[in-house]
Amino acid sequence: MPKKIVIIGAHAAGVDAASAARKTDRTAEITLITNEKYTGYSRCGLPFVIGGHIASFNDLIVFPPSYYKMMKLNLKTETTVTNINPTNKALDTTNKTGKTETIPYDCLILTTGASSFTPPIRGKDKQGIYSLRTIEDGQQIDQAIKKGAKNAAIIGAGLIGLETAIALKERGLNTTVIELLPYVLPVMLDQEMAKIVHEMLEQKGLKIIIGKGVDEILGTEKVKAVSVAGEQIPADMVVVAAGVRANTELATKAGIATGDTRAIKTNGRMETNIKDIYAAGDCAESINIVTKKPACPQLGTVAVRHGKVAGINAAGGYAWFTGVLGSAVTQLFDTQIGVTGLIEFFAKREGIETVTGTITSKTRADYYPGAKPIKVKVVVEKESQRIIGAQIIGGEEATQRINALSFAIQKQMTIRELAKADTAYAPPLCETWEPMVLAAEMALMKLR
Amino acid sequence: MPKKIVIIGAHAAGVDAASAARKTDRTAEITLITNEKYTGYSRCGLPFVIGGHIASFNDLIVFPPSYYKMMKLNLKTETTVTNINPTNKALDTTNKTGKTETIPYDCLILTTGASSFTPPIRGKDKQGIYSLRTIEDGQQIDQAIKKGAKNAAIIGAGLIGLETAIALKERGLNTTVIELLPYVLPVMLDQEMAKIVHEMLEQKGLKIIIGKGVDEILGTEKVKAVSVAGEQIPADMVVVAAGVRANTELATKAGIATGDTRAIKTNGRMETNIKDIYAAGDCAESINIVTKKPACPQLGTVAVRHGKVAGINAAGGYAWFTGVLGSAVTQLFDTQIGVTGLIEFFAKREGIETVTGTITSKTRADYYPGAKPIKVKVVVEKESQRIIGAQIIGGEEATQRINALSFAIQKQMTIRELAKADTAYAPPLCETWEPMVLAAEMALMKLR
Repeated sequence: MPKKIVIIGAHAAGVDAASAARKTDRTAEITLITNEKYTGYSRCGLPFVIGGHIASFNDLIVFPPSYYKMMKLNLKTETTVTNINPTNKALDTTNKTGKTETIPYDCLILTTGASSFTPPIRGKDKQGIYSLRTIEDGQQIDQAIKKGAKNAAIIGAGLIGLETAIALKERGLNTTVIELLPYVLPVMLDQEMAKIVHEMLEQKGLKIIIGKGVDEILGTEKVKAVSVAGEQIPADMVVVAAGVRANTELATKAGIATGDTRAIKTNGRMETNIKDIYAAGDCAESINIVTKKPACPQLGTVAVRHGKVAGINAAGGYAWFTGVLGSAVTQLFDTQIGVTGLIEFFAKREGIETVTGTITSKTRADYYPGAKPIKVKVVVEKESQRIIGAQIIGGEEATQRINALSFAIQKQMTIRELAKADTAYAPPLCETWEPMVLAAEMALMKLR
Repeated sequence: MPKKIVIIGAHAAGVDAASAARKTDRTAEITLITNEKYTGYSRCGLPFVIGGHIASFNDLIVFPPSYYKMMKLNLKTETTVTNINPTNKALDTTNKTGKTETIPYDCLILTTGASSFTPPIRGKDKQGIYSLRTIEDGQQIDQAIKKGAKNAAIIGAGLIGLETAIALKERGLNTTVIELLPYVLPVMLDQEMAKIVHEMLEQKGLKIIIGKGVDEILGTEKVKAVSVAGEQIPADMVVVAAGVRANTELATKAGIATGDTRAIKTNGRMETNIKDIYAAGDCAESINIVTKKPACPQLGTVAVRHGKVAGINAAGGYAWFTGVLGSAVTQLFDTQIGVTGLIEFFAKREGIETVTGTITSKTRADYYPGAKPIKVKVVVEKESQRIIGAQIIGGEEATQRINALSFAIQKQMTIRELAKADTAYAPPLCETWEPMVLAAEMALMKLR
């Protein structure tokens, strides 16, 4: 009898889990069940469709129907799992016509994702309030723009908030971003780094309010403005980007444990506390490589890595997930921004004594046209002299610098080793002294 | 009495040695002596001036006279050191007017660089034959183009050969590159990777001949053609880019030992076999991090790192040079090419049993416009499963990928760790599954 592997959810984690399971077991019966209409698309691409960089929301579908066919995966869309029964190893489901079905499993992988979180703001149920998590969300925002929205307010200056704000600005809307915390990108950057981004965003025409919350969303039926510390900011559209929460209701109801981050607790094989049930992606917790504590960064790269491990294990193979560093990048207007490991703020909150090094340099040789400024900050654990975090703001190759520093952190490189690292150079591509190396040198000077 | 630090040579290694020495000892008397007119410029930028990307050769001068003044460095240009006398700790010098002077030193740093090597080809003394190592070389080539040269032959398809060939092509010359070895970039790439570059260069209009040498340079007084395996290739200009040789005559005469690479032997403090004499840059040998054998990659990045260590030590500080991986990058037309560590060919020649993984992927999300193809090859030591080398050919962020892989090699990352590495992602900047990680996965499949 072929093994029955069932996956709840069909996005990054789900489809990668299914693919890995298929590669591990050619005969398994693999079924993906999702309550969504669109599957296997890139959520990260949504702001770029709204901004007009990508022609259509359909372009975001990374796994078309032909993929499931090729990989021999059963896909049940618009089908809701109402119950997990671990004792019988079966799921209760209801499809869009209301038909119920009980689906048995040998192994179950939960990739139920996360949902946008709306803070309890007065007036939050008016028309014209959106989040941006699904293609449907994106289509609604796009429609609102096409219907003539002129002013937008974004609640939250995290990655999604700022990417969406820029998209709306690119579509011609007057856009204001309101962030409760004292600076933008508060999870990605330390305050002095965030300030640079803040100034750049303002120069490009976004209005940014930090350290203040939205007291009320104003309007009768439809949104007209938001009230922030007594000021009324006109808004015929509000996008709430105040973070996401792991979808764990189904899991909790079935006795599956959640962890400190409120996401589903997993071990290195992505197993939950219940035998033969795995979790992966935005709904699943893993371990931070530096702190060794539970973490749930809810990133696409983590989702696919989770999914692969869960899929291999569910199909009878052996794979181990080594943890997360929360490496993340974005491009805001022309500025690339990246982070890996711990920002100084979080390191201190963890009780880690740190030393930092920051440098502003250029991305090409002095004399080569097109060089852009780049700022690199490294965070070092004072006791071990190991690099434990890095932030980059700058014009070129920030992503791969973040990857380089991520490798350094994963392999416990000391800041002394980084200051002496063998790097590559060519005038059109970088400087002789690599900015990462210079930042390490700055930190080292404080350690001497 | 202030310490007398004398440096022979005033380019990357020399000036960085002087700067490091100054930072270590604020009172030392630091003197740079060079037989050149122009100092402190970037040799790596020469092809880009010829190609017209940089306005003037003067733009390549990274350290202008004001720099030496600011750092309180004495600079003697157009002055030849004729003799090193280690017993008296003094140098014999002759300046351009023929005046001789004996200059005493407490510590001496040799940054005598390297010279272009011209193979013993018949006709090699005709007019119209150039190399490209100095600003004067560059000016001569530029003049020849301005005087109407139409056809160029480049001897050697290494980095400088190809960069110069492209510059000449950009200036409108019919350009042929002749490489004696069986493929282009033979030090940087393995044959199957080099083939991709070869085809790209031909598509862009360069003529490339591999596996054949130039038998004779033809013409009466002036070059008219080169003869390659019976074929006559018209050329009113020949650029010899057949590699460089460390300048060691002065050192050898003074009893300073050279090593297996024919460059000056040094220890980790960049000390030669003679007390208080250091060597740095293209004239100095160091240790390859992977093979632990002597190496002399003659790269700008190595020169500045050498110089820094030599300068700190000469000034009474303590610094250690940890070795080289030969990380190098270039951009040929629009294609970025990079290497770090050992190519498969060299690894095998060292007797290392290897496994490789190669992947062709893209630099951005599938749906994001502007993605470019990228090819990543990783070379793995089979026994330890550690990554020991990598090559990249592809459109975006190759340099920093090379740096990332260089960090991985330096920290002895296994290919299994690389296949699980935490990387960063955003649709406009990279793919969810990083190509380096996919290449590692390909290698891992062969190890299972």
